[in-house]
Amino acid sequence: MALKKQFLYQKLAARIADQIQEGIYEPGQKLPSISKLTQTLNKSVSTVYRAYVELEFLGLVEARPKSGYYVKASSPREKKCKPNAPLPIFSAGKDLSDYADEIRLAIKQPSFVPLGQAILSPELLPQKHISKIIKAISPKQMQSLISYGEPQGELKLRRQIARRMMGQINSASPDSIVITNGCMEAVALSLMTVTEPGDTVALESPTYFGYMQILKELKLSIVEIPTLSGHGIDLDALSQATNHHKIRACLLIPNFQNPQGGLMPDANKRRLVRLASDKGIFLIEDDVYSELHYGSSRPSLLKTFDRQGITITCSSFSKTLCPGFRLGWVMAEGKTLEQIKKLKFSISMATSSLNQHIICQLLESNRYDRHLRSLRARVKNQVRAVAGVVKKIFPNGTRVRLPQGGFVLWVKLPEDTDSLRLYQEALNEGIAILPGFLCAYSQNWKRYIRINCGFPFDNTVQNALVRLGQLAKAQIVSSKTGTDK
Amino acid sequence: MALKKQFLYQKLAARIADQIQEGIYEPGQKLPSISKLTQTLNKSVSTVYRAYVELEFLGLVEARPKSGYYVKASSPREKKCKPNAPLPIFSAGKDLSDYADEIRLAIKQPSFVPLGQAILSPELLPQKHISKIIKAISPKQMQSLISYGEPQGELKLRRQIARRMMGQINSASPDSIVITNGCMEAVALSLMTVTEPGDTVALESPTYFGYMQILKELKLSIVEIPTLSGHGIDLDALSQATNHHKIRACLLIPNFQNPQGGLMPDANKRRLVRLASDKGIFLIEDDVYSELHYGSSRPSLLKTFDRQGITITCSSFSKTLCPGFRLGWVMAEGKTLEQIKKLKFSISMATSSLNQHIICQLLESNRYDRHLRSLRARVKNQVRAVAGVVKKIFPNGTRVRLPQGGFVLWVKLPEDTDSLRLYQEALNEGIAILPGFLCAYSQNWKRYIRINCGFPFDNTVQNALVRLGQLAKAQIVSSKTGTDK
Repeated sequence: MALKKQFLYQKLAARIADQIQEGIYEPGQKLPSISKLTQTLNKSVSTVYRAYVELEFLGLVEARPKSGYYVKASSPREKKCKPNAPLPIFSAGKDLSDYADEIRLAIKQPSFVPLGQAILSPELLPQKHISKIIKAISPKQMQSLISYGEPQGELKLRRQIARRMMGQINSASPDSIVITNGCMEAVALSLMTVTEPGDTVALESPTYFGYMQILKELKLSIVEIPTLSGHGIDLDALSQATNHHKIRACLLIPNFQNPQGGLMPDANKRRLVRLASDKGIFLIEDDVYSELHYGSSRPSLLKTFDRQGITITCSSFSKTLCPGFRLGWVMAEGKTLEQIKKLKFSISMATSSLNQHIICQLLESNRYDRHLRSLRARVKNQVRAVAGVVKKIFPNGTRVRLPQGGFVLWVKLPEDTDSLRLYQEALNEGIAILPGFLCAYSQNWKRYIRINCGFPFDNTVQNALVRLGQLAKAQIVSSKTGTDK
Repeated sequence: MALKKQFLYQKLAARIADQIQEGIYEPGQKLPSISKLTQTLNKSVSTVYRAYVELEFLGLVEARPKSGYYVKASSPREKKCKPNAPLPIFSAGKDLSDYADEIRLAIKQPSFVPLGQAILSPELLPQKHISKIIKAISPKQMQSLISYGEPQGELKLRRQIARRMMGQINSASPDSIVITNGCMEAVALSLMTVTEPGDTVALESPTYFGYMQILKELKLSIVEIPTLSGHGIDLDALSQATNHHKIRACLLIPNFQNPQGGLMPDANKRRLVRLASDKGIFLIEDDVYSELHYGSSRPSLLKTFDRQGITITCSSFSKTLCPGFRLGWVMAEGKTLEQIKKLKFSISMATSSLNQHIICQLLESNRYDRHLRSLRARVKNQVRAVAGVVKKIFPNGTRVRLPQGGFVLWVKLPEDTDSLRLYQEALNEGIAILPGFLCAYSQNWKRYIRINCGFPFDNTVQNALVRLGQLAKAQIVSSKTGTDK
């Protein structure tokens, strides 16, 4: 129901944006009142209101107190909105990406309370064991580690990874795996393999903001498909989008989605694979969080249900072991695999042999499983602790839903709050969070924030959360009393 | 003194090459005798003689016993440099690249005598010192090394690199450097930044075969421009090519070119920068070999002469320290730099912090300089030793020219030999070499092989070279006696 409304106001916003663009409404001109539009267009007051709020957020119109909405003198997004399509398609504009860079840099300042980046505390990582492995490297091993490695990655490591995938994919084989510089390179190679510049790729909304950026860099167009926590990408919306766009690939995070934390049920995964197969869409699944399940076992993959080789699985050890080592992998089949292998050689030749050795040693011991068991328990508790404080301290109307795995918390703030402003105010006080507007081009998430729960829940974290709650409350008060500028 | 002479004969060779190109000397025509040219040009006999040997080496002229030097019937440059014909443009065909994959895999078999890949023996690398650095990593350092690093690369390392570039570029700054996964990623990011799929890029012929592959992967078209050893890319041919093609970038190895080993003189570098600037061509220079100069100092860069920021410099530590660590960098300016930084984040997020730490520690000590001094001396001696055997053992008509730096030797075999066949025959006997045909799409280098001299000259290497010589001789005999199929 809510979803349907969302589409309506988006359509309306896109239509008005077009009219502004076409000069029907000129800069500075007053737009029709909400009641007038409600009558003329036969839309609900809420739809019209939300369309205007959307346009305001996009910087196209401004609200003048006791007067109404006006076309802004110089609107930044002017060229970007496309009409007549059920889902907006964006040729990834510049502004968001620049913002993303700034925010990405800001939230990783080591002096800040680290609630921004999705990152684990080094304390939770097996540092000592890694040090031990490094110190045990023999001169003979070192000889081979400093020499050129295999572009596809060390066989021993690929074997370990394949072994760990057996539960999900019966046919998992070291030959189908290419070791990469983190999951980002895995995704980049996959996209470069199955798309051409100008192609359209479906992304979840909300999603990991880095994906919007890479699609932009690769000159791909984006169709954003809503994702519902615990349900996964909206299959009807995706199916509908294929009527309007030639979608070449869909890049998504079915397991413990970032930022929502939800798990796509197997039935939906199956349906998605069928749909993609029917429509000739490649599926690129990012599986970085699946080892951090709160349930009893690692969830299935899209690839689990794929008999046709249309799914490319990308993952890494960045969310469980050592992000700084940049170690990931991609699993594919047939021609896709061959092309990824070639591209890997061309793009970076091979992945660091030293880092592969360290990770492989960890996987070969039973340390990794032990580490995962304790890590799962810890992050689950940390997420619960953070969620508890948010529920208690944040203003009324705040909505929190516990994720099903991973370590980020997606929080919806009450009306009259703006997560970008909250992000800025928090940053001023040394607290980093991720504002939701970074998680999609369509501006549906500006009342959301993502909180990283990868650090032990201590006083620093607790105090930071309390302060965030106060800042959010202050936004509401200032908006109600009109002290807001 | 030696250096000056070298330039003289090179200049003369280039001049005669131009005259052949312009049709002043036609295919099959006899060239002036050495004594005649000595008189006319007021050059020494030795200069003229060496110029002819050079032209012969390049496949432009041939010596006929007891008669003199003749313009070759089909000189490889002929087709390419006719004033009114465009240089051939290739939409990188499939076959060569498939061959390249196969050969790349074959020549790196550890059981083979390693004369194929351009690779240094691990014995020549500072393994012990690297082990020492690794073992000295403190728990606190480890904490930061396993965490996400800076996408642009660690500042300390960028400072070290900038410091080492000061001699070449006055304005070298850590801010203008992005650390990458080897030089390949540096080149990939550069190409992706300055080109769009479908654009045309100028490559040297011959060149590093990986470059043909990445251009293909990025869907770029190639114009091959001949390169003369010790002279660099043919500037007239490049200039002429711009009349027929919109060349967007030129990717080249001005210092100790792979595979020829020649050094582009400063005057030519300056001219190239001017030409590129006039024609709106970005220059991407691969500088991986420049620390391995045989002369007294590191050569200048194209960037040394660039006031407009059109040059992107790519390099790595793979030819001097540890190829397996995949550590390189790219240096650029202005918008190009900003775009490379964004792309780096999108393509692989960051480079391994651990590997950056190790290299940085090496650079901060004075070990690296000491290592380089001894490495330079060793590779120079190894190259000389290999060249000595080739001259002595290979069939008459084999041409070898010592490189001016680096550790590969480019060898021209006599007529009636085929380097691809030689590669295959050698491989059957456990000897890896690189067949010249891999070094360009235009098939000008079928009679050439590249020999890696990165390993100590021992009995194994010597015996392999002797065997190669026998195999080459056998080709000639079988061709002469008609036993060849």
